[in-house]
Amino acid sequence: MHADNAQETTPAVPRDEILGRVARLWTHVGPRPLAAVFAVERVEILYFAGTPQDGLVWIPREGEPVFLVRRDLARARRESPLARIVPFARARDIPEILAREGLPIAGPVGTSLDVLPVSLYRSLERALGTPIEDASSAMRATRAVKSPRERESIRAAGALATELFTRLPGFLRPGMREIDVAAEIDAFLVRAGSVSYYRTRTFNLEFAGLCCLAGESGAVRGPSDSPNAAGSGPNPAFGQGAGMRRLAPCEPILIDLGVNRGGYYVDTTRVFHFGALPAQFVDAHRASEDIIEAAAGELAAGKTPEAVYAGAVERAAKAGLAGAFMGGSRFLGHGVGLQIDEWPVIAEGFDEPLPDGAVVALEPKFALPGGIVGVETTYVLEDGAMRSTVDLPAAPVRLD
Amino acid sequence: MHADNAQETTPAVPRDEILGRVARLWTHVGPRPLAAVFAVERVEILYFAGTPQDGLVWIPREGEPVFLVRRDLARARRESPLARIVPFARARDIPEILAREGLPIAGPVGTSLDVLPVSLYRSLERALGTPIEDASSAMRATRAVKSPRERESIRAAGALATELFTRLPGFLRPGMREIDVAAEIDAFLVRAGSVSYYRTRTFNLEFAGLCCLAGESGAVRGPSDSPNAAGSGPNPAFGQGAGMRRLAPCEPILIDLGVNRGGYYVDTTRVFHFGALPAQFVDAHRASEDIIEAAAGELAAGKTPEAVYAGAVERAAKAGLAGAFMGGSRFLGHGVGLQIDEWPVIAEGFDEPLPDGAVVALEPKFALPGGIVGVETTYVLEDGAMRSTVDLPAAPVRLD
Repeated sequence: MHADNAQETTPAVPRDEILGRVARLWTHVGPRPLAAVFAVERVEILYFAGTPQDGLVWIPREGEPVFLVRRDLARARRESPLARIVPFARARDIPEILAREGLPIAGPVGTSLDVLPVSLYRSLERALGTPIEDASSAMRATRAVKSPRERESIRAAGALATELFTRLPGFLRPGMREIDVAAEIDAFLVRAGSVSYYRTRTFNLEFAGLCCLAGESGAVRGPSDSPNAAGSGPNPAFGQGAGMRRLAPCEPILIDLGVNRGGYYVDTTRVFHFGALPAQFVDAHRASEDIIEAAAGELAAGKTPEAVYAGAVERAAKAGLAGAFMGGSRFLGHGVGLQIDEWPVIAEGFDEPLPDGAVVALEPKFALPGGIVGVETTYVLEDGAMRSTVDLPAAPVRLD
Repeated sequence: MHADNAQETTPAVPRDEILGRVARLWTHVGPRPLAAVFAVERVEILYFAGTPQDGLVWIPREGEPVFLVRRDLARARRESPLARIVPFARARDIPEILAREGLPIAGPVGTSLDVLPVSLYRSLERALGTPIEDASSAMRATRAVKSPRERESIRAAGALATELFTRLPGFLRPGMREIDVAAEIDAFLVRAGSVSYYRTRTFNLEFAGLCCLAGESGAVRGPSDSPNAAGSGPNPAFGQGAGMRRLAPCEPILIDLGVNRGGYYVDTTRVFHFGALPAQFVDAHRASEDIIEAAAGELAAGKTPEAVYAGAVERAAKAGLAGAFMGGSRFLGHGVGLQIDEWPVIAEGFDEPLPDGAVVALEPKFALPGGIVGVETTYVLEDGAMRSTVDLPAAPVRLD
């Protein structure tokens, strides 16, 4: 499979866009006495500097951010629209560098303590000489709303996912191993300028290999909190995703893929099959279609994620499928963007209606003995409507 | 490209092997007053439990480890040779579970604070009711020595790398984009039961996409501490690895790949070219061959990594290539195993001779204007000899 639109030109992130992100960050931090927040994790640096160069984006409450760059400085200057980009080598030099920029460290600062390792945290706290508090909620809430420009990348990723899923029937054949399918998809994505792996935020969350689960593979559970982050994988050391099982007739073949454009993912799942799908899978898949349609409508109407999740659980129970719902995971969907596990999560505890510009992948799935079925679509909430990023039917696709 | 030996059967890790790892861990912890060390990061769990299921491997100073499993319990019981495997859901239940296993928490415990995020560290410290200290050096030193069984996986990975690099000339063509090469390699690896991404330990270290750098791409620097962890990548959001540049005559094409078997990587680099390679690249590549040969010999003879690194720097300087050596990074090689960035590092500060069973990738490279050249080979130190894991000439391969 070859992509038609392989060449991608990604314009640099405009300066105004970054300053808008910064302004929103501070509305989320609110009145907490933090003098500055800094980004130190790779993807957060990308978000606030426009390039993932190694360093630290210092975001003062007043004034523009300073990008302290360890490497590569020339590249940071070329790729970041920020006005203040300065080199640094050692953490202990940071206070002096900031003072020179008119930003003496005064009072506690914040960063994402859900991702920052303890050792680095300690050396930074020592170097800065001030307490470092957790600002991860403000960071995640800021990133949960996608700008029109970000939504364009998301839609471009959706178009690429549509192209990929549309081409799959052209090459899926009975007898192929799951890893043969994954190899073909991998190559398609890489040729298209996408990537064949997932960026995640959650500690220990790893999606090893692309996800093609044939028949019983869908019933193999694994370490990750995902309805189908399982499968046997190529071997026990990876233990997730596509494995050695061969595509066979009358079994669901679930294909779940993160597709990326310009840094932004969409997450999409569709089910394929050869021969007739046994009734329990057909029924469960129909329940999945009902749930995703209802959930999208409710989220668009302003229902809270936790209420929408509760409604989905109820629908699954009414369909007699409570035990199989989400393979035991307790959510219905998740935010998607520069990473695959963003906010909001459609789950208990998320009690605010989705903001305009939210991007969420809804993925009602049912893990049954002998296979997994369900549909996953990434939606953009815009002007009160949940707009699908893909142009694909939700129903299982028969291949013969 | 299709792999010949696609089916891989990975035997479970034997119990004795795990207990041997535990014994070595405690020799590295030594007399420090730690009552237990625990593994909580995915790959360390894999190392001490034989499966990467989510949870925590509690390793008491006396007696066998207990594997506390969040998910998936059934799979942990199937895949781990440990005798004590118990479920847990909440961190605060850990002390009671351990007490039931005859392991009341008494005194400080250790884990890898270089990888554990602050938020999780705090909730674990609260739950355990005892200080958690850093035991990452002991963990890394333990993993730096590979058992005969691990070396078998490493050698199998080397054989797969040999097969892949041997097949490359069969499909590299002028005019292909770097990402076309990466796509083909990706598909080969996935079909062979390997993976198309890297497991790393270091915070923020990410190798986006497989590394094929044609001509000037080798001069594009990036965020990672690696002589060639650069290239433009498919777009600025990833910004590393294979990009849109096309293979052209009379330029070095450097291909640097992690190839995996049964969880274990080898890291291999070779240079290819169409037409004649300009003299500066030929000379620099020859210097790289001299350096790797000398370094392997010196490491085998018991010279310390830091002395070997200093010798390599001196050789590079003598060749008039000091400024280009390692693209500015300050090391010559690194340990390889379940992750791509293991101990020992061949760099300043590593002042102990390599132990028998060490596995290191040596990668003298020269980043010149217009391209990067160099050779990288993963060696196993066994019986006083540095044995290459690949059967490939070190010289650049002319493709036409």
